[in-house]
Amino acid sequence: MSKQEPGYITAAEMAGRQREISVAEFFLKNRHLLGFDSQAKALLTTVKEAVDNALDACEEAGILPDIRVRVVELDQHIYRVAVEDNGPGILENQIARIFGKLLYGSKFHKLAQSRGQQGMGISAAGMYAQLTTGKSLHVTSRVKGERTATELYVSVDTTRNRPRMHGKKRIKWDRPHGTLIEAEMEGRYQKGAHSIEMYLKQTALANPHARFRFDGPHGEAIAWRRKTRDLPPPPVEIKPHPRGVELGRLIQMLNATTSRNLLKFLQSEFSRVGPKTAREIIATAGRNLSERSLPKRIAHAQANALYRAIRKVPVSAPRTDCLVPIGETRLLEGMKKEIDADFRIVRTRPPAVYRGNPFQVEVGIAWARPGGVGLAVDKKGHITKAARRKRDNAGAIALQADEPAQLLRFANRVPLMYEQGGCAITHAVLQTNWKHYGLKQPKGALPLAPMAIIVHLASVWVPFTSEAKEAIAEYPEIEKELKLGLQECARRLAEQLQRETRLQHEYDKRSHIETYLPHVGIALQEILRLSDKQRDRAVRKLDDTLHKTRKIQ
Amino acid sequence: MSKQEPGYITAAEMAGRQREISVAEFFLKNRHLLGFDSQAKALLTTVKEAVDNALDACEEAGILPDIRVRVVELDQHIYRVAVEDNGPGILENQIARIFGKLLYGSKFHKLAQSRGQQGMGISAAGMYAQLTTGKSLHVTSRVKGERTATELYVSVDTTRNRPRMHGKKRIKWDRPHGTLIEAEMEGRYQKGAHSIEMYLKQTALANPHARFRFDGPHGEAIAWRRKTRDLPPPPVEIKPHPRGVELGRLIQMLNATTSRNLLKFLQSEFSRVGPKTAREIIATAGRNLSERSLPKRIAHAQANALYRAIRKVPVSAPRTDCLVPIGETRLLEGMKKEIDADFRIVRTRPPAVYRGNPFQVEVGIAWARPGGVGLAVDKKGHITKAARRKRDNAGAIALQADEPAQLLRFANRVPLMYEQGGCAITHAVLQTNWKHYGLKQPKGALPLAPMAIIVHLASVWVPFTSEAKEAIAEYPEIEKELKLGLQECARRLAEQLQRETRLQHEYDKRSHIETYLPHVGIALQEILRLSDKQRDRAVRKLDDTLHKTRKIQ
Repeated sequence: MSKQEPGYITAAEMAGRQREISVAEFFLKNRHLLGFDSQAKALLTTVKEAVDNALDACEEAGILPDIRVRVVELDQHIYRVAVEDNGPGILENQIARIFGKLLYGSKFHKLAQSRGQQGMGISAAGMYAQLTTGKSLHVTSRVKGERTATELYVSVDTTRNRPRMHGKKRIKWDRPHGTLIEAEMEGRYQKGAHSIEMYLKQTALANPHARFRFDGPHGEAIAWRRKTRDLPPPPVEIKPHPRGVELGRLIQMLNATTSRNLLKFLQSEFSRVGPKTAREIIATAGRNLSERSLPKRIAHAQANALYRAIRKVPVSAPRTDCLVPIGETRLLEGMKKEIDADFRIVRTRPPAVYRGNPFQVEVGIAWARPGGVGLAVDKKGHITKAARRKRDNAGAIALQADEPAQLLRFANRVPLMYEQGGCAITHAVLQTNWKHYGLKQPKGALPLAPMAIIVHLASVWVPFTSEAKEAIAEYPEIEKELKLGLQECARRLAEQLQRETRLQHEYDKRSHIETYLPHVGIALQEILRLSDKQRDRAVRKLDDTLHKTRKIQ
Repeated sequence: MSKQEPGYITAAEMAGRQREISVAEFFLKNRHLLGFDSQAKALLTTVKEAVDNALDACEEAGILPDIRVRVVELDQHIYRVAVEDNGPGILENQIARIFGKLLYGSKFHKLAQSRGQQGMGISAAGMYAQLTTGKSLHVTSRVKGERTATELYVSVDTTRNRPRMHGKKRIKWDRPHGTLIEAEMEGRYQKGAHSIEMYLKQTALANPHARFRFDGPHGEAIAWRRKTRDLPPPPVEIKPHPRGVELGRLIQMLNATTSRNLLKFLQSEFSRVGPKTAREIIATAGRNLSERSLPKRIAHAQANALYRAIRKVPVSAPRTDCLVPIGETRLLEGMKKEIDADFRIVRTRPPAVYRGNPFQVEVGIAWARPGGVGLAVDKKGHITKAARRKRDNAGAIALQADEPAQLLRFANRVPLMYEQGGCAITHAVLQTNWKHYGLKQPKGALPLAPMAIIVHLASVWVPFTSEAKEAIAEYPEIEKELKLGLQECARRLAEQLQRETRLQHEYDKRSHIETYLPHVGIALQEILRLSDKQRDRAVRKLDDTLHKTRKIQ
């Protein structure tokens, strides 16, 4: 081996430095990837991960969610965050791993719509708490039907990504079932667009079947009521669609299957493949493949032929009953409650597919008439002086004329609070030509209007741009659906605004004429020497005629 | 246990679905996080990861890098990517893990400037190749000093994140040392801003000590020569600075240390802590802590006191000799070769610190005078008609007037090719008021100028916004340094441009006068009845005076 200069090292020395990196260490050092890059974000991310899990658990168990969030300031920049749900509870032997191990969960390996999908978020919150205050996560959980609850402290052993647990005991708990998580961490409590309050408000908007209560560190006590008692249907798990599979994955599936022959393999491992389609795929593949070929024995070249056959043979589009959109009615209810607006437009698009994954887009627009006009139109088109909107919901999102529209983004009913600029939803909104629909829009910016745009993407697998799940990646199929949804709503908005403008003009003209009608009557009376009664009749007749010819439809 | 409705599940059923997720499965499903979201990006990311590793290995071993990249089209959308280096080679028993296991490497656990830091990139490339074509990564490596090379095929067993290897043998290889990686994968070969060629061009710019050769699928054969034989000094590893440590991490370090007392612990585990500072920290902490306290026995409240003391007691700023910037001279050389410009401004800022991590910013500006002017100024300020720029380097980056400036971003000498919008460097450039320096700049956009802006961040730990390492996260300390570096260069650019404008005016005026001087001479001759000799002397005198009064400094 050649002589080395000082400071430089040999291949053997280099080898000695190679080491395994635990996934927990990795995310501890890169905690910004999971949403723990600042004190303010850490508090919100913790609440978000806990609430996501709580909603998922309640819905999977068929329970109407009842969620309570408390944030207490313990010291300067030190907070206790507590999230409590009425879910089915967690089995004692699962608690440690669920909260003390990254990449452990029930949602990663299945194709079904859920809020969580990685099995990382809540453990990462615990890890961050541990890192900043040295305190373990405190978990209390009572399983539905059990008489006592389990209480324990858990942290992540980061060098091995394993849970470390202490103080486990069974306790009495006055809740019949549910889970309470408490974490002490460095944080910064903030108001505004990235606040816990705003997150809960938007979560309530997208989850009208859930009830939330928030107690903040400055005495805030806010409740969001349930707007419906209908639970969304339980999420249905689907199998992958053959068109979404890659060659390497197909080879892996062939090796791992328990199916005894190729015909059964194709039918049981994929959705939308019946015996007829399976036979056609096998016949198209050729290469000595038959219905009775043993999956594990299929060679690389044969697998490749099978892969190409799958792309050639027509297969029905993926099942879409696995998707649970919010739905137009409920989205409307949510918007009415959480956004202070005059009218709303909603649209749930039909399901579509990207890379074999079903997804569905929903768009809502809420519009507030500029305060001064005071005009409102009822369903029959009659002009009424608008009763001042009831401001009973003082915390509602307010919309301002000549300000950029407020964009609320959601994925699987979870509000996306950060990374607006890097999200497919934002891009679709920016690329929509709002001028075409009569709105002001600076180049490359959000339209300027007293408007909120709500966009929801539901999918069995949401392609997020990072583990922090704050923005959706740009798949062409998703972008297309987003744009179609936005355009539909924008068109209906433009119609409504045009109609209102026309009505306003009519109203202005008519009141103008109405003002002068008595004077016309007096002039007629003088010219034609009418009696007062005749004059009044003439005025009434003129008024009637005006109403008929200018009838507002 | 209460009766469940169909579709809903109990806590026990939920528990049965909980499973561990292998980190390889996680990144396979989320491969866009590692830069494998599209066929075009997959090719580039593979080259990038292999070249990063090659450069790191060469530099660590004190070898001038000599790197060859080949891309061959095997079938429609199927490519073979080969990257070969002259590095020190990899020990046979390490090859499988380095290429067949995610989160395995030598760079994660130390604080030292390197291109790689995660131990994931190249294994992910292999995983993507396996997924899309079913083919394992082919690795050939010869360790410096050994007589034969090792050849083997390796893939990632994704369900367990372990390497799977086959076909290992010792072979003759005509290279004295180095590593060759070959991967077959789905891909799309593209030209332009996100091409392999552009990546190599920029890599050559930031690594003037390295030589590159690229053979593309369409017969491209491009070489980038070495511009210097001086290797950058070997990266120095540092210990964490006490100010960058969090409470939880401090507790972890107290538990894991081999130091027998607190005094030794503080000195040996942190940089910049000598006996005096250590004693002061211990005294400030109080709480019964002494120099001889056993680190493993320190209670939570004591650790907290220690943590607060560390923040109070003055500690020298972190060491910065661990940083290896490109340097002004070399950056200038690289820019001269790779960017077709008329003049260049470079600035290496002094080192700074974010979260205890030293970092350093370098900025370069290359400016091309619009073709028509043809004015150039040498060091003495004399006006010369500019010799037409030699266009010998036909592949150089060309700059256009009235086009947005070209922004080239680098982190630890690696060009960042994607996610420009989400990068701290871009934000710093956009927030710089270029109008103030005489340039056109649309609101919120890059300045419009025939200019390239090069920004390099060197750090012992670059905070990337995602595992794909395409953008730098926004830390206030980093943003500040970026802005200062940009402002300095912009100021010098403005001076240079003002000077050129002034010179151009002088030049225009003078040549104007010079044109009329002979006519003035003739007029004087007629009025004063001068001889031809007297007339010529008068003209010369006038010319001299003009040159003196209008002297260009």
